[in-house]
Amino acid sequence: MPHTTEALVVPSAGAPFRAEQIERRDLRDDDVLIDIAFAGICHSDIHTVRDEWGAAHYPIVTGHEIAGTVAAVGDSVTRYAVGDRVGVGCLVDSCTECEQCKNGFEQFCEKGAVGTYNSRNYDGEWAAGGYSRQIVVTERMVVRIPEGIDLDEAAPLMCAGITTYSPLKRWGAGPGRKVAVVGVGGLGHMAVKLAHAMGAEVTTLSRSMDKADDARALGASEHLATGDAEAMKAARGRFDLIINTVSANLDMEAYLRLLSPFGALVNVGLPDEPYSVRPFAVIGGNKVLTGSQIGGIAETQEMLDFCAEHGIGATVETLDASDTTTIDTAYDTVVAGGVRYRYVIDTSTIRPD
Amino acid sequence: MPHTTEALVVPSAGAPFRAEQIERRDLRDDDVLIDIAFAGICHSDIHTVRDEWGAAHYPIVTGHEIAGTVAAVGDSVTRYAVGDRVGVGCLVDSCTECEQCKNGFEQFCEKGAVGTYNSRNYDGEWAAGGYSRQIVVTERMVVRIPEGIDLDEAAPLMCAGITTYSPLKRWGAGPGRKVAVVGVGGLGHMAVKLAHAMGAEVTTLSRSMDKADDARALGASEHLATGDAEAMKAARGRFDLIINTVSANLDMEAYLRLLSPFGALVNVGLPDEPYSVRPFAVIGGNKVLTGSQIGGIAETQEMLDFCAEHGIGATVETLDASDTTTIDTAYDTVVAGGVRYRYVIDTSTIRPD
Repeated sequence: MPHTTEALVVPSAGAPFRAEQIERRDLRDDDVLIDIAFAGICHSDIHTVRDEWGAAHYPIVTGHEIAGTVAAVGDSVTRYAVGDRVGVGCLVDSCTECEQCKNGFEQFCEKGAVGTYNSRNYDGEWAAGGYSRQIVVTERMVVRIPEGIDLDEAAPLMCAGITTYSPLKRWGAGPGRKVAVVGVGGLGHMAVKLAHAMGAEVTTLSRSMDKADDARALGASEHLATGDAEAMKAARGRFDLIINTVSANLDMEAYLRLLSPFGALVNVGLPDEPYSVRPFAVIGGNKVLTGSQIGGIAETQEMLDFCAEHGIGATVETLDASDTTTIDTAYDTVVAGGVRYRYVIDTSTIRPD
Repeated sequence: MPHTTEALVVPSAGAPFRAEQIERRDLRDDDVLIDIAFAGICHSDIHTVRDEWGAAHYPIVTGHEIAGTVAAVGDSVTRYAVGDRVGVGCLVDSCTECEQCKNGFEQFCEKGAVGTYNSRNYDGEWAAGGYSRQIVVTERMVVRIPEGIDLDEAAPLMCAGITTYSPLKRWGAGPGRKVAVVGVGGLGHMAVKLAHAMGAEVTTLSRSMDKADDARALGASEHLATGDAEAMKAARGRFDLIINTVSANLDMEAYLRLLSPFGALVNVGLPDEPYSVRPFAVIGGNKVLTGSQIGGIAETQEMLDFCAEHGIGATVETLDASDTTTIDTAYDTVVAGGVRYRYVIDTSTIRPD
């Protein structure tokens, strides 16, 4: 008999949230029942709720930045016990058998990983995400939140954290390396904190100087306004790595010019138009244009351990969901760039009318 | 007093070759005088002679795939002696002082490296390339051609060889890795030989199956026709690395789809239109779109040593230049894709009228 819990449900594209009872599956042997404490608001949630990417399935419960504590475990669960502090990110299942799964890259599972929402579980049931008081997830897809990171500041690490940590690691952010972060928002503020903690020299770029002070407080040594043509010209060839967190359509060549030879421009935002890049912009200087999509489970755990070691959490504003219009309004604020730097929903406040 | 030698000169854009006497500078202390034996015909030569890239300076002597023997050395030369078998590639000078030069990446010299032709030496004189009986080059930019590689088969290694070796090494071609080579021409045939010698499993791709047998003889285990939609679909996700040697405008997304997660598509040809790539084509699967520009001097030496160790040279057709129209005709043949796989000019046949 399925188990019921409270959740913020969007019944159709762009409709306001409603607090409702939803069903979670009974615990399978390898499942963990999690009492969710906080769920971060990621821009992907907004795109999905508003059906801006197409193919959204309603009613929907979004949220893939989940932090909480274990409330119950299935019979064969070995990694977690009741009371453990845990997180769930963008994925709730993968095949475990393909080369990608075996190598820890569940996000590229050849069978197709199961997303935390807007995705069907392998049994055919639609997955429901983290804007909810509880969730049931196989223990394989659950990570441990170390002591020293508060759950509210941990929740956004499950998407914004791993999405920026993974390319910073892969492309060698560290001492002696100059890293630029484009966009100082939910993803960008994490990229700055993480790159700084890795020992890199961090420069932030955004349209204006409005966030210059914040950027320095997050760990950047310099901030550049992309609208300042002189500053952009002076920065040519300066960076070893650029993490572009912006979802707007940017001129990729303008950023490739900022790279030193062998440098990489890693995109983690999803603009709607194609990149247009003249061949010599990558051939000259052996430059890399690439992207990065979240990270695997083992790397997510590594990221959390790194954050605990370095005292890093997301910078959050907590939302009370007892009036669901608070969440509707928060979505508009995120789209307008008004949150500094991540909203988390206190899921204990979700109360059906 | 400058020294005279014979060369194939193009007096103006697109004009036929003329055999003439040209001047080479007197040997400086660190210079080597090379008796050129063979000079390869690279597609870049053709673009430059025909002014298809703009900014060509005439009269011009092209050729940057040079193999020969040392005929004389300057007073302070220590690396080479008269009679040594040597090569010169695309560069004849660099500043030696910038970070790129110090790291062996002379091609990205911050002052600007001096190209073998269509480039001014630091003293202001225009450099003249390898379609000539002799050349004078600072010993720093000269490499040693090991015993075991004939000079005719060595000449194309100086551009086609290093241009494909460098990205194959950087992006990890080797045992257990699946490498695709797009285009089986001057660059492509070298990419196949080198990747195969590195231990990778090599697949070639070209428009038709015409070169399938040749590709297998060069070391490919399979050949795909890019016009075969079924074969292209079946190859999705198959390759770890793709070296695209084609200068035509190809659909980058079609090739990115052939990569496995974390795979790299490296372009070494220079098409004239921008690449157009939807963001998810690189973000999904953390795929890399990049390019590669020749290689540094140390890496060029490493490539030659690798080729000697593995018995690799270019597959060449030798041209007699005593009738200069032979070279004009050869250019047309290269453009038509009719050479298998690199023309080299026997420079001893250059005879002014």
